[in-house]
Amino acid sequence: MLAVVRAIARPTLAHMPSPHTDDALRAMVESRLARAIDSHIAVPRLAEACRYAVLGGGKRIRPLITMRCCEACGGDVSRALDGACAVELVHAFSLAHDDLPALDNDDVRRGRPTLHRAFPESLAILAGDALFAAALAVAMDDPHHGPALCAEVVGASLAMIDGQVMDTLPEARDDSIDPAALVEQIHSRKTGALIAASARMGAVCADVGPEDAKAIASWGTAIGLMFQIVDDWIDATQPASRAGKATGKDQAAGKSTWVGTLGVAGAVAHVDRLAREANAALHGLGDGAANLRRMTSELAGRRH
Amino acid sequence: MLAVVRAIARPTLAHMPSPHTDDALRAMVESRLARAIDSHIAVPRLAEACRYAVLGGGKRIRPLITMRCCEACGGDVSRALDGACAVELVHAFSLAHDDLPALDNDDVRRGRPTLHRAFPESLAILAGDALFAAALAVAMDDPHHGPALCAEVVGASLAMIDGQVMDTLPEARDDSIDPAALVEQIHSRKTGALIAASARMGAVCADVGPEDAKAIASWGTAIGLMFQIVDDWIDATQPASRAGKATGKDQAAGKSTWVGTLGVAGAVAHVDRLAREANAALHGLGDGAANLRRMTSELAGRRH
Repeated sequence: MLAVVRAIARPTLAHMPSPHTDDALRAMVESRLARAIDSHIAVPRLAEACRYAVLGGGKRIRPLITMRCCEACGGDVSRALDGACAVELVHAFSLAHDDLPALDNDDVRRGRPTLHRAFPESLAILAGDALFAAALAVAMDDPHHGPALCAEVVGASLAMIDGQVMDTLPEARDDSIDPAALVEQIHSRKTGALIAASARMGAVCADVGPEDAKAIASWGTAIGLMFQIVDDWIDATQPASRAGKATGKDQAAGKSTWVGTLGVAGAVAHVDRLAREANAALHGLGDGAANLRRMTSELAGRRH
Repeated sequence: MLAVVRAIARPTLAHMPSPHTDDALRAMVESRLARAIDSHIAVPRLAEACRYAVLGGGKRIRPLITMRCCEACGGDVSRALDGACAVELVHAFSLAHDDLPALDNDDVRRGRPTLHRAFPESLAILAGDALFAAALAVAMDDPHHGPALCAEVVGASLAMIDGQVMDTLPEARDDSIDPAALVEQIHSRKTGALIAASARMGAVCADVGPEDAKAIASWGTAIGLMFQIVDDWIDATQPASRAGKATGKDQAAGKSTWVGTLGVAGAVAHVDRLAREANAALHGLGDGAANLRRMTSELAGRRH
């Protein structure tokens, strides 16, 4: 995996300086997420559960993608903040529901008890619903791009739920197709769609032209697939202490995974291929996309 | 309850003929809902669960409210069809999640097994999520009023989830306030907000002016509260065979209800008062609101 990182990291050496560090962006996101819960969730007990699910943890990869894509298209990162937080709220909603006993039945998330272990299960279900509704509310808080962001969030959520159904229920899968095609079908929806939408939403917030929009969309699609392959690789090869959640569960649950389909070496080679594909898509954006190239290599070589 | 119906039914005798019967509207709604699931839910097994949750049952009260409000404001009912179906999909999503074992743990809905009894619980949770996402997608399918409808759906859903949390979790209620104020606080959110939004969305689809919009909003708010009081009355006094779902459950679950707070006679008197208030709000709409006056009396005297 390290070889991949080195190979991809090279083009970023000449990147333009950005006025914002990733930590600065994360601080903006954290504060906007807290404000979103305060302004859209009225009942204190529900807001408490939502804060637990959303704040104080999380790498904020999706919001960073949205803001960095906006930046790469010439927009200030702050213009993409509502869209970025909408995406993160969808992600938090999906984790709250995916962790439930009837689904993945996970006890630990980000090194802490999952939402339904820290709160009553009823509240975990309803907090997931509220986070989804709040995601839409935050998307519409954007005064210039509300409807476009909303459409992206809804489309990605529908795809994500499709993917989650296929991942959870063997009977929902089309087992007649090739295993590699099946795993791509599941994961391009379950994880890839929201990451790809995160990227496109950044471009939307920069009011970008069609050519750059296409470049960002291609990068987002490649990154979205790559992200899940690395996730599968972590689940198959890393201890829970490094992942911040239970690992080795996919195989035990009979899930369709990249590592299961391609093997560890095959999965790593596919990550390498997708990382190159992702960066190739950025060619026309020049030095402005330096942070996206850096993200490609960081996401390819992700360590928890 | 019958006295209420007679008292309120009188003003509708002189109503203008409408080209659409309620059954004709229901048929439009049924077909649009089926199309919404077909076009927004890709995975066949998920679509099957969504169809089970949405089609082949339900009185379609909320879509009828949206379409009749549009008509009362001078718009053709068909203009409100996307908004009407968005509201019904939110309603279906809320039923799917409210019925779950961790929440109301209901086995029967509309005389059939609830979604999580007919399908795996994991699929019931994800189908609820998908119906919510589909509701937003259908709201945005409206080419003229998508963003406004979306905002109404999101706002009403946030309020609905707030109300559901207060209804389900005693610790989420502010028990220091007056019991009648508390029950209104819970139910104006849990049920009232979506019904009130249904009414306003009809006005939005008719591109109505501010005065008529206010009239429709007042009618919707009164109807929304009234609806829940009648629901509580049904739960407290009617057998399951007439309600199509288990009854007598609110008291057993220690829920805060109108009948529990006001008594049966007090609840009926409050229905009467709200029905008069609802119809008074329609004054300025004249004969065009005849169908809304009829709905007031039908909803006040609702029998399953």
